Amino acid sequence: MSSPRPRVVIVGTGFGGLTAARALAGSPAEVVLVDRNNYHTFLPLLYQVAAAELEAEEIGYPVRSILRRLPGVRFVMAEVQGLDLAGRVVETNAFPLAYDYLLLATGSVPNFFGVEGAGQHAFPLYSLEQALALRDHILRCFEQAVQEPDPLARRQALTFVIVGGGATGVEFAGALTELIHGPLSKDYPTLDAGQVQVVLLEATDSLLPVLPDRLRDYAHNRLRRMGVEVRLRATVARITPQAVVLQDGSILPTATVVWTAGVRGNPQVPAWGLPTTRGGRVPVLPTLQVPGHPNVYVIGDLAYLEEEGRPVPMVAPAAIQQGKRAAQNLLAQMAGQEPQPFHYQDLGTMVTIGRNAAVVRVGGRQMTGFLAWAAWLTVHLVRLIGFRNRLFVLLNWAWDYFFFERASRLILPRLPSR
Amino acid sequence: MSSPRPRVVIVGTGFGGLTAARALAGSPAEVVLVDRNNYHTFLPLLYQVAAAELEAEEIGYPVRSILRRLPGVRFVMAEVQGLDLAGRVVETNAFPLAYDYLLLATGSVPNFFGVEGAGQHAFPLYSLEQALALRDHILRCFEQAVQEPDPLARRQALTFVIVGGGATGVEFAGALTELIHGPLSKDYPTLDAGQVQVVLLEATDSLLPVLPDRLRDYAHNRLRRMGVEVRLRATVARITPQAVVLQDGSILPTATVVWTAGVRGNPQVPAWGLPTTRGGRVPVLPTLQVPGHPNVYVIGDLAYLEEEGRPVPMVAPAAIQQGKRAAQNLLAQMAGQEPQPFHYQDLGTMVTIGRNAAVVRVGGRQMTGFLAWAAWLTVHLVRLIGFRNRLFVLLNWAWDYFFFERASRLILPRLPSR
Repeated sequence: MSSPRPRVVIVGTGFGGLTAARALAGSPAEVVLVDRNNYHTFLPLLYQVAAAELEAEEIGYPVRSILRRLPGVRFVMAEVQGLDLAGRVVETNAFPLAYDYLLLATGSVPNFFGVEGAGQHAFPLYSLEQALALRDHILRCFEQAVQEPDPLARRQALTFVIVGGGATGVEFAGALTELIHGPLSKDYPTLDAGQVQVVLLEATDSLLPVLPDRLRDYAHNRLRRMGVEVRLRATVARITPQAVVLQDGSILPTATVVWTAGVRGNPQVPAWGLPTTRGGRVPVLPTLQVPGHPNVYVIGDLAYLEEEGRPVPMVAPAAIQQGKRAAQNLLAQMAGQEPQPFHYQDLGTMVTIGRNAAVVRVGGRQMTGFLAWAAWLTVHLVRLIGFRNRLFVLLNWAWDYFFFERASRLILPRLPSR
Repeated sequence: MSSPRPRVVIVGTGFGGLTAARALAGSPAEVVLVDRNNYHTFLPLLYQVAAAELEAEEIGYPVRSILRRLPGVRFVMAEVQGLDLAGRVVETNAFPLAYDYLLLATGSVPNFFGVEGAGQHAFPLYSLEQALALRDHILRCFEQAVQEPDPLARRQALTFVIVGGGATGVEFAGALTELIHGPLSKDYPTLDAGQVQVVLLEATDSLLPVLPDRLRDYAHNRLRRMGVEVRLRATVARITPQAVVLQDGSILPTATVVWTAGVRGNPQVPAWGLPTTRGGRVPVLPTLQVPGHPNVYVIGDLAYLEEEGRPVPMVAPAAIQQGKRAAQNLLAQMAGQEPQPFHYQDLGTMVTIGRNAAVVRVGGRQMTGFLAWAAWLTVHLVRLIGFRNRLFVLLNWAWDYFFFERASRLILPRLPSR
């Protein structure tokens, strides 16, 4: 028998999980939010942490600060280790959490598509830890290069390969190039800027495949003019600590491979007893429920749902919309009503390439250049959580924009936690 | 034979080394600045990073940014591994660096005074890495406590022991208490604030022994009123992962021991062939030269020098003044003139305890309370390097002051570097 106040356990404090928690706050439900980190990460700006543009604290926000304003929601910092769907219990490394309703919003992990060496040698860009590790590594490459007498080894240290021409790959390629040709070229006056190479590899025949032709061309040309070497139809066969090997046999000597080629569902999910489809995602009903488990919802990147024959994309707005719908459906269920189907509302796509340069598609409208860039800035500032983070991000951006600077250039690996 | 342009190698980018590099920029000397980190750390504010008040990037400043304005000075990021005083070579993990003149400004490391377990289990507070590790640990203790059903274990997680009642110990005790009773008590409404304990242990019979009685009493009373348990004549005998054992046999169960009880010279220095005195410091002539090695200078915390029978204190102003004197003496030597003796100018002492509360001694004048606090803020803001860091620190302080907040509350251990 359920307790008089039904307990909803939400796993994940990303866009989907947080939105659901907000929508359930103050409702008849008791809500427990679980995450292995004590903060929410604003993933759309993660690449700027890796490019030394923003500090980690500016795009991470403590979950407990958000919860201060959400009555009836509490937080447990723990890692989920299993599910007992029959017994309605989430197993964690802290203690088991019984639930009446479960909402899984654990997001996705990098998909290496079985490429040899990618998991070991490539830098994924999907968490704050990874972004900081990548930033430290890039800065360390420059310190090594400036000490390196052998021109080939120097070239290798100064070649940065980004795999994947989607939004993250394009945005990071642009941000990295501006970091290199701005502050780093001032910091390392003895290094020949011509020796530094940023290579963007895309397996298909175009960058940003989800965008219309004009915007793709703009992005491609803009990156090329900034000095990024864009290689289309370039499929990675193997990654070693010293190089990327392409399927056509060509070898790119590099110490830095950034992997932005795709994501997949958490590989532990099948062990939790949930069915998964290609890409490790959980197929859900239009109501976002798991078939056969009406009290279990899956949302965001982990959920697989098709609408009119097309999968709902793995983007933040979809997770937010699903978080709202799942919360409404949960409340409907508790009230003895029917859950309603989810409908994805496409808010458009925005990709920034660099200073004064972005591409934006909203509905049928397209924008490029300064206006698109200003729109990108505004939307991302507004969507950040917390006035303080908005203020500090805005100040950082203004500083970088007017002084051609990047502030976060400390090589600062952390000590192991104890 | 020396090269036509004499080469000065400066080891350390702290206050002393940076000041010397600045004074030698544009001179006939070729200057090489060596440090294992690529940044300067503004150590007087380090405790605020550990107390989640400032971000690491706000008190760390990239050395290469400073060097952009210093002609004739270049930077090598490397760790010193030995000295060949006869051959005039600094051995590093990158490559050997020949010198005509050597200026050692490597600072100090924590002095555990042989206390059993201190090196393994206590948290020192002397580098950015250590400050971040301590911050993560403190926040993690709260997350563990809120999940802990056993009241004794919870009490242990919520007891924070600071060893050493000098400036760092007093400042950190105040900042930690304000973190706990401000933002953390809002973040953990289910935790009983009475269970949280901050204990400051001092082996002598007074806090802040360098200050006059009135200021010591003010600091002591203020800390007590804030809720810090100050224990004088408390000597630590042993530290375990679970507790601090005092010499009187009493045991304080705690998961967090912060060690601020003292510093000593780098323990590798004797192996480099330099004489050391008690505390591992290198005795220098009044000219800051090492006896018998007129081309080797030692400054800052690593140097041991007495003036009128009293040792020059291990504080930032002494290091800065010695950096200037050493640079002037080096230039004099190159010009065939005599090096001049160093004279320490005591600029006073400032210690902040918390919101609106500090103690200041300048010459014979003493100040406490709000005015002292405002003076402390102003001096530290002005002394920070870089306008951006000043702006961001000021904004952070203003934010915390008006909203009783602390921004940097992410538990964010970094990935190992590769």
